[in-house]
Amino acid sequence: MFITLEGPDGSGKSTLAKGLCAALQARGFSVVLTREPGEGEFGASIRSILLHGGDMSQKAELFLFLADRAEHVESFVKPALEAGKIVICDRYADSTVVYQGYARGLHLDLLRELNTFATTGLVPDLTLLLDLPPEVGISRVPEKNRLDSASADFHIAVRNGFLAEAKLEPGRFAVLDAMRSAEDVLAGALEVVDARLRMAGRV
Amino acid sequence: MFITLEGPDGSGKSTLAKGLCAALQARGFSVVLTREPGEGEFGASIRSILLHGGDMSQKAELFLFLADRAEHVESFVKPALEAGKIVICDRYADSTVVYQGYARGLHLDLLRELNTFATTGLVPDLTLLLDLPPEVGISRVPEKNRLDSASADFHIAVRNGFLAEAKLEPGRFAVLDAMRSAEDVLAGALEVVDARLRMAGRV
Repeated sequence: MFITLEGPDGSGKSTLAKGLCAALQARGFSVVLTREPGEGEFGASIRSILLHGGDMSQKAELFLFLADRAEHVESFVKPALEAGKIVICDRYADSTVVYQGYARGLHLDLLRELNTFATTGLVPDLTLLLDLPPEVGISRVPEKNRLDSASADFHIAVRNGFLAEAKLEPGRFAVLDAMRSAEDVLAGALEVVDARLRMAGRV
Repeated sequence: MFITLEGPDGSGKSTLAKGLCAALQARGFSVVLTREPGEGEFGASIRSILLHGGDMSQKAELFLFLADRAEHVESFVKPALEAGKIVICDRYADSTVVYQGYARGLHLDLLRELNTFATTGLVPDLTLLLDLPPEVGISRVPEKNRLDSASADFHIAVRNGFLAEAKLEPGRFAVLDAMRSAEDVLAGALEVVDARLRMAGRV
């Protein structure tokens, strides 16, 4: 089972990822936690350029995310899934559609095609979308980096983009209210994951 | 005028690029010399990952080249062309079609579409293809890096790929016999460039 976490910076994805991982491991599942961009040495190089590399064109940024994703899926995610593990990934293909498409204006269909090519069609079984008002997310992020320093309009477009994607694929997405406490968000997420594990015959 | 140099490692592209640049500058043209991957700080980061980053998937490699190209075209090549300069570029989009397509097996049409997207459709006015038998090119490259350490079949596919592309676009490509001395190759290249400059009304 491949679970992705999506939502803006400051929405609690990393905290939820760790909580989910611990809860599922405590129940005996083999779980791996990963993130994009940045898994492994290759991903770390890409992440470093994305976060600290100065101004770059939208397309250059897009291709760096895709390079990271292609490598991540082939060398990390697919082998883990094939070994029967639950993979929890902090950001995945939806982030590209939302940030580069809804927020920065690249064509959504093109981005979807590029994602399909980069991932060889690997779609998550479940995507947990952490939703909250943009101003709350921004206020929660202490350290500013290049990717955070965007306008209010940008953050609003990101939120609306994620919600639009969730509406397009209600069977894959579960939208969680990220204004709640971390404990409540985790409890909500576990309910959804449990339902999927039952559907998949894993519990 | 946008001139690209293509051909395998060891075919003398860098030497020809410098010779062409000097010869055109001596005649009063404003010329800039550049290369892919690797122009500027961004390009250097990408080049470093490509040359020394260890094993990576074909798709990850492709996306890194495209990231470099997108940034290079937008921030360097297009501004120079708009300023009326002659841009000489050591490797460009054809290298992607040949290395990732003909040699590594990715779909040629897909690669062409990705190039068009990455470059916003910027096609060279002239592409000088330095052609020579693979074994000669290999023997000329002293320092081995990750991109050089490929099989003989790979190098043959690269040569045949470049020649096939040149046949598809005879109006853009000029094939130069790179077995000749550097002076003769430069003289041959200058003849072709002169003809193009006359056609463009620049001489």
